[in-house]
Parts: sequence; structure tokens; C-alpha cells
Amino acid sequence: MKNKIEEYNEYREKMNEKIIAGSNKVIKRFFNLDTNAYMDGVLDTKTKEMLGLVSSMVLRCDDCIKHHLINSHKNGLTTEELFEIFAIANLVGGSIVIPHTRRALEFWEEIENNVE
Amino acid sequence: MKNKIEEYNEYREKMNEKIIAGSNKVIKRFFNLDTNAYMDGVLDTKTKEMLGLVSSMVLRCDDCIKHHLINSHKNGLTTEELFEIFAIANLVGGSIVIPHTRRALEFWEEIENNVE
Amino acid sequence: MKNKIEEYNEYREKMNEKIIAGSNKVIKRFFNLDTNAYMDGVLDTKTKEMLGLVSSMVLRCDDCIKHHLINSHKNGLTTEELFEIFAIANLVGGSIVIPHTRRALEFWEEIENNVE
Amino acid sequence: MKNKIEEYNEYREKMNEKIIAGSNKVIKRFFNLDTNAYMDGVLDTKTKEMLGLVSSMVLRCDDCIKHHLINSHKNGLTTEELFEIFAIANLVGGSIVIPHTRRALEFWEEIENNVE
Amino acid sequence: MKNKIEEYNEYREKMNEKIIAGSNKVIKRFFNLDTNAYMDGVLDTKTKEMLGLVSSMVLRCDDCIKHHLINSHKNGLTTEELFEIFAIANLVGGSIVIPHTRRALEFWEEIENNVE
Amino acid sequence: MKNKIEEYNEYREKMNEKIIAGSNKVIKRFFNLDTNAYMDGVLDTKTKEMLGLVSSMVLRCDDCIKHHLINSHKNGLTTEELFEIFAIANLVGGSIVIPHTRRALEFWEEIENNVE
Repeated sequence: MKNKIEEYNEYREKMNEKIIAGSNKVIKRFFNLDTNAYMDGVLDTKTKEMLGLVSSMVLRCDDCIKHHLINSHKNGLTTEELFEIFAIANLVGGSIVIPHTRRALEFWEEIENNVE
Repeated sequence: MKNKIEEYNEYREKMNEKIIAGSNKVIKRFFNLDTNAYMDGVLDTKTKEMLGLVSSMVLRCDDCIKHHLINSHKNGLTTEELFEIFAIANLVGGSIVIPHTRRALEFWEEIENNVE
Repeated sequence: MKNKIEEYNEYREKMNEKIIAGSNKVIKRFFNLDTNAYMDGVLDTKTKEMLGLVSSMVLRCDDCIKHHLINSHKNGLTTEELFEIFAIANLVGGSIVIPHTRRALEFWEEIENNVE
Repeated sequence: MKNKIEEYNEYREKMNEKIIAGSNKVIKRFFNLDTNAYMDGVLDTKTKEMLGLVSSMVLRCDDCIKHHLINSHKNGLTTEELFEIFAIANLVGGSIVIPHTRRALEFWEEIENNVE
Repeated sequence: MKNKIEEYNEYREKMNEKIIAGSNKVIKRFFNLDTNAYMDGVLDTKTKEMLGLVSSMVLRCDDCIKHHLINSHKNGLTTEELFEIFAIANLVGGSIVIPHTRRALEFWEEIENNVE
Repeated sequence: MKNKIEEYNEYREKMNEKIIAGSNKVIKRFFNLDTNAYMDGVLDTKTKEMLGLVSSMVLRCDDCIKHHLINSHKNGLTTEELFEIFAIANLVGGSIVIPHTRRALEFWEEIENNVE
């Protein structure tokens, strides 16, 4: 049985492939750019993933949050750091961010239990 | 078998406890403040819950809407009043609020059928 | 010399007239509906204006805030009540609502100094 | 067994009927207006549905997207045109639109497989 | 003396040049992509500009609206068509779009008076 | 003559004082919390200010952006780092973030010219 991280990743990959197969150059380049934006620069990937995560939280995009949680975890984000990001996201974005924070923490627990 | 209100409340409480257990002071105080904001003042709780509800509708946060529907019901909101809130939320926020209005009415029916 | 309330009202009326003169039926009926939504119903106009105000604050629309401040004042909103609306708007919408709260209070002072 | 388009339509119709049965005139007229907005004018329905679709995408309203996908399909939108709308929606609204694009394409495939 | 269209264009060009001069590849490619997205494809530029315009209206970005008004005008948009776009933007995005509609119409009048 | 940073700070302080003088406890505590959220924790203030900045950009709040630009500059943010934040904000939030990026860069230049 698949865990929620695998489920998320599989659907994401399946549909992204179909979108890219659509031969629309603007979409392809946009998706490509999205990947490049988080590569090490003067800011390292971990910092950039935190920027992506907090942005996704204040914009309240659950799937985007999941994506950045997976990548932040890969790049060494700790639970204590995560909570400080939660704090800023909730302060800046308000109580409407709370339900997304609940789901974010639940997904983070999944990651910690299932990803090495 | 649990009804949808119980399901909502249980998940909310379970995850809120975990978030508060995270020992991040800003988060804790923010959650605490969120509770205080709806207490009787020069505006009574019922009015404040209506303010919370309409805000949640125009910001299109289904879980926030559920929360304020439960609390508005507790504080005596009638179905006719609810529809006038729906009217303002749809006017101010536009037709993108319609799907949230559908789910809000469905949840309101659950509340009326299950909560004394 | 015109005060800021007069300036706001004049520009609003001038442009609304032009928009309505455009002979687009959907726009006309939408503008008409927007007026009707705040009329006394099971909720009175004052309550509805508060709902419109808090919605405009969380959606961060300065001109909409001004409009509802003028109408709320006409319908007897007190400064103390206004601050409780500010509290909920800031809590629900987050710190991005703060700059709009500053401008809202400044406009409210204008109203109190200039409108009988 | 119902396909996803039937499921979407049935829930939408069932709840819309209940909302309209609520006897709130503002809501009724708003729902009515929403239908009229997409009728042939100087812009034809197909163009208007494309406008409704791109708006729903940048505002990230999945149910609104479904609604406009169904209607765009009825009015002759091609898959290649759809991808150009996706491109603009993603450019204007950013990468937070990507998860909605994935779900939109999935629903579009459902439409193409199930709707004549 | 410069008209408002010239003012808008000059500031936009001056700052865009500085942003591009910043040597950040992601930004440069993003700006480049933004230009390409509106080029003739299966949908022509006029249609794409209408899509950009309605998106900017529901997202309530005045500068983006100005940009698409200028380009829509260049590509033959009529005032009557503009009003049908206004209608959909207001319906989908709600009454918070009204102040932006006022400013959009004012800018459109500037364009019609100043641009050949 | 005051520069734009002084103007921004003076208006902000003047109005914040009035808001806090309003004796609404929820508002006071919220404003207080907003200050605490950016203090050194497991993430340092510079990182937190970057999180606040990127959030303000994707939520398109010019005054919030100014605030975080001032504080980021105080905490050692470089122009090259700023551009990487711009890149992520534009990617995540889309081309509607561009006008805010222009104003952000203009304000950043003011800071660099006027703040030691």
C-alpha cells in the first residue's frame, strides 16, 4: 500500500508528464523554470525551499505545501525550523492559514515516518 | 458512525493539539488570540461569528467556514440570516464563492440535523 | 477645498455613471444588486455594512473599505465597534491587513471630523 | 456508475436548487446574472467561457474550473486552445496554479472520454 | 507634458530594464516567457490579451490591467467588447473588482484620447 | 526634505500608535506578536525577514514589502540575494507580482542610497 507521499508524487508526476507532453512551449519552459528557481545560488536550496514553503502557505495551496515539505525535508529542515515557518505564515496570512497548517503538520509526520 | 461535524471537530482538535504541543510561542499565542477575538465585547459573539463567517467565505476557506457555521449556530444564527450572509459574501467575493456556498449550506444542514 | 470623503465620493460617482452609461446589462444589474444587498432584511443595514467592511478588509480593497466606512458611520457604527471589526479582520486576514487598517483609521478620522 | 462530470453536475444542481429555494432575492438574482454573463454578445459564448476559465484558474477555484471546462467543451474549445489558456493562467497566476492545471487536465480528459 | 499612458510605459520600461540588468537568470527568463505567452498561437494575440486582462482584473492588479488595456487596444479591442470583459470580471471576482473597473475605464479613455 | 524611507516609517509609526491607543486588546496583542515573530530563533532574523518579504510579495502588499526590505537591509541582505527572492516570488505568485517587484527594487535603491 502506498503512503501519502508516494500517492502525491505519483499523481504529480503522471499529470506533469501529460501537461509537458501537450507541446505548449510556454508551459514547458514555465515548468522548467520552476525547477531552476530552487537550485543553489547565493541562497542555498534549503533557504529557497523555505521561501517556497512560506509562500505556498500564505497563498494556501495544499499541494504546493506538500511539494515544498518534501523538498525541505530532503534539504535538512528540522521540525523546530518548520514551526518557525508556520509562525510567520500564520502571522502574515492570518487564521485562514490554520487549516493548511494542520494538514501541513500531518503531511510532515508522514514524511518523517516514511522517508529516510 | 460519526457525522461530519464530529469528524471536523475531531481532526481539528487532534491537529491543533499537536501544533500547540510544538512549543512555538508565537503559534501558541496566535491560536490563543484567535479564540479571544470572538468573545463578547461591544459586539456580541454572534455578530463576531458572522464577521468571521463572511470573511472566511470571501477568502474561500472551507474549514474556516465550517468552524464559524458551528459557532454561529451555537450563538443563535437563523437560516434566513445565514442566507443574507451568503448574499453579501457572493456579491463581494463573486461567483468563485458559489462552490463554497454550496458546501456551506450542506454543512449547515448537517448541523441542523445533528446538533441540538 | 474638498475633503477626502468628498473626493472619494465624486470620483466614485463620476466613474460609476460612466460604467452604467456603457449599456452593458450584466454590469448594470450587478451594480444594482450590489446596492440592494445592504438593505434592511432580517439583518439590518448596520450589520450588513459591518459584514461588507470586514470582507473588504480581509480582501484588502482600500476603496471598498472607504465605501463601507462611510456607510457604517451613517448607520451608527462607533469607534469602539470599529476596532473590534479591525481585530477580526487582522486575525483572519493576517498582518498584510495592517497597512489597510492604518489607512482605514485615517479615513475614519476624516469621516468623524467632516461628516455630521 | 456515474462519471466525474455527472457527479459534479448532480451535486452542483442539487445544491444550487436548495440555495435558490432559500428565497433570498439577492442570491437568486446573482445566480441568474451569472448565467446571463456568458451568453452571446459582441463576444461569443466560447470566448466568454475562455474568460471565465482563465479567471477561475488564476483564482484557483477547482469547481469553477470544472464548470467552465464543461461549457468550453460544449462550445468547441480544442485541447490545443486549452493549453494556451493554461499557459496564460500559469504565467499570470504563478506556480500555485500548477496543481489546479493538473486537475483541470484530468477533468478535461474525463470530458473528452465521456461527453459527446 | 506626458499623458498617463506615457508615464506608465516609461516607469515600466525603466524598472524592467533595471530588473533584467540584475543578472538573475530565472527573472530574465520569466520576463521573457511573459512576453512570449501573448504571441499568436491557435488563439490570436487579441484573444490572449483579453485573457490577460480578465485575469488581471479578478486578481485586482491595476498595473497589469493598464498593460493589457494598452495591448488590447493595439490589437483592436472595442469599447463594447471591453464592457463584456468588465461584466465577467465583476461577476467572477465580485464587487471588490468595481474600484479597479473604474480605474480601468478611466485609463481606457486616456488610451482612446491619446493613442492612434 | 524627507526621503521615502522616512516618509514610510513616519506614517507607519503615527498610525500604529493610534491603532494601539485604541485600547483593543486583541489588536494590541496581534501587533505585539507580529514583532516577536521575526526575532532570532532556530532561524535567525535575516532568514525570517526573507520569509516575511517573499510572503508579502506573493500576497502583493507594497507596504509590507517596504517594511521587510528595510528590515532585511538592516540584517545584511545583499542585492544578489534580493534578486533570488524576487525570482521565487515571481515564479510562485506569477506575473501579477511584476509591478510589485518594480516598486520593491525602486524602494531598495532608496534604502541603499539613504540608509547607512
